[in-house]
Amino acid sequence: MDFKSDSVKILTFDVFGTVVDWRSSVIAEGKRLGAAKGIENVDWAAFADAWRAIYRPYMDRVSTGQLPWTKLDDLHRQMLEETLRKFAIHNLTEDEKQHFNRAWHRLDPWPDAVPGLQRLKRRFVIATLSNGNISLLTNMAKHAGLPWDCILSAENVQRYKPDPAVYQLAPQLFDLQAEQVMMVAAHEHDLQAARKHGLRTAYVHREQERGPGKATAIPPKDRYDIVAADFLDLAEKLGC
Amino acid sequence: MDFKSDSVKILTFDVFGTVVDWRSSVIAEGKRLGAAKGIENVDWAAFADAWRAIYRPYMDRVSTGQLPWTKLDDLHRQMLEETLRKFAIHNLTEDEKQHFNRAWHRLDPWPDAVPGLQRLKRRFVIATLSNGNISLLTNMAKHAGLPWDCILSAENVQRYKPDPAVYQLAPQLFDLQAEQVMMVAAHEHDLQAARKHGLRTAYVHREQERGPGKATAIPPKDRYDIVAADFLDLAEKLGC
Repeated sequence: MDFKSDSVKILTFDVFGTVVDWRSSVIAEGKRLGAAKGIENVDWAAFADAWRAIYRPYMDRVSTGQLPWTKLDDLHRQMLEETLRKFAIHNLTEDEKQHFNRAWHRLDPWPDAVPGLQRLKRRFVIATLSNGNISLLTNMAKHAGLPWDCILSAENVQRYKPDPAVYQLAPQLFDLQAEQVMMVAAHEHDLQAARKHGLRTAYVHREQERGPGKATAIPPKDRYDIVAADFLDLAEKLGC
Repeated sequence: MDFKSDSVKILTFDVFGTVVDWRSSVIAEGKRLGAAKGIENVDWAAFADAWRAIYRPYMDRVSTGQLPWTKLDDLHRQMLEETLRKFAIHNLTEDEKQHFNRAWHRLDPWPDAVPGLQRLKRRFVIATLSNGNISLLTNMAKHAGLPWDCILSAENVQRYKPDPAVYQLAPQLFDLQAEQVMMVAAHEHDLQAARKHGLRTAYVHREQERGPGKATAIPPKDRYDIVAADFLDLAEKLGC
């Protein structure tokens, strides 16, 4: 590390994939719904992947101005409608669709996430910095027992990552220099955008995020301030 | 109660005076600073009261447009300068002033606040709804062990209470009807503004907020949805 971790005051976390296992959670919810509704011949892993695959294109509609600011819950709902059509699922009621859409509020954490955050919280302010909306992140924290000090979201600035305003949020709110904030994420594009705006960066490897055989390569150790195997390893490397 | 507490999903809390004892905390910090700096003949209770007395007038400068949006930390600092002049205290360094100004980040909770919030958190989303800025409320929560699910602040909408936008924040973010949100406060003006915008209201009596002999009258039971002696009584009355 070419920095003193003493200078870091806040850790901001990407959430989907970094803290919670969205894929397994959405697959499990899909299977339950399918069984309850007698939906057959749907591969719920493929369904979860298809739902997630249009995440970026839908946010881009907001970022390019094609859509006005729309919170992620509402984008997820539009994405769900498109995915249901794709899989020829036509028998869900409005209540069932609303409940399924809120599967993103009920994602389960990676096994190391809660104990890791508890250790990190003793020394740092720990905050979300996610494209998920504030209520989604709050409900998820209650569901998963995530001990955030503060929920920060793209919704605070009505801009989606990688908009600079999202990365500037924690320094501005907490009167800190950018380098006193460390972005934690399992995705290199997120860390590279954070670094561009002066934040410290910690990569955490999530081999299972996209399912079996889909792991990305672990980046070289010197590419980020920290490259960690999981949140417990991150805590160790930050001296917590 | 003329409402079913089952319909309430979120409790939003006023913080200064309702959750934390700002007066005793600021007096204690003043005394420590005074002793360290050899400041004599200052009545730190009078100092704390004078600092707080100009809270509303300073926020009014923002609300009327005389000042642009200014977070409470920065208003507190201007108010501190005015109060130091009033008490003829001229020997503080910049670092000492910054530290003293952050006394508002280190306020101690009323004795029932943490156990009461822990009970309420099992059933409801519990969030701040304070004129304090987001970093102030986050740091205070870490200092005092306040188990908030979510930090919501006037800073989210860049308007100070009693601006309608502050009371509309929780319903909007959580896709709720106003009556599914309950405002908890020790101050009737805050509850009356909340009710005007459709929120449920819970009054909590804080006899000691303004010091000995300054308690306001307990309002009649039917004036708010709940009138409680403290947070444990509130939890009891909400069936937690």
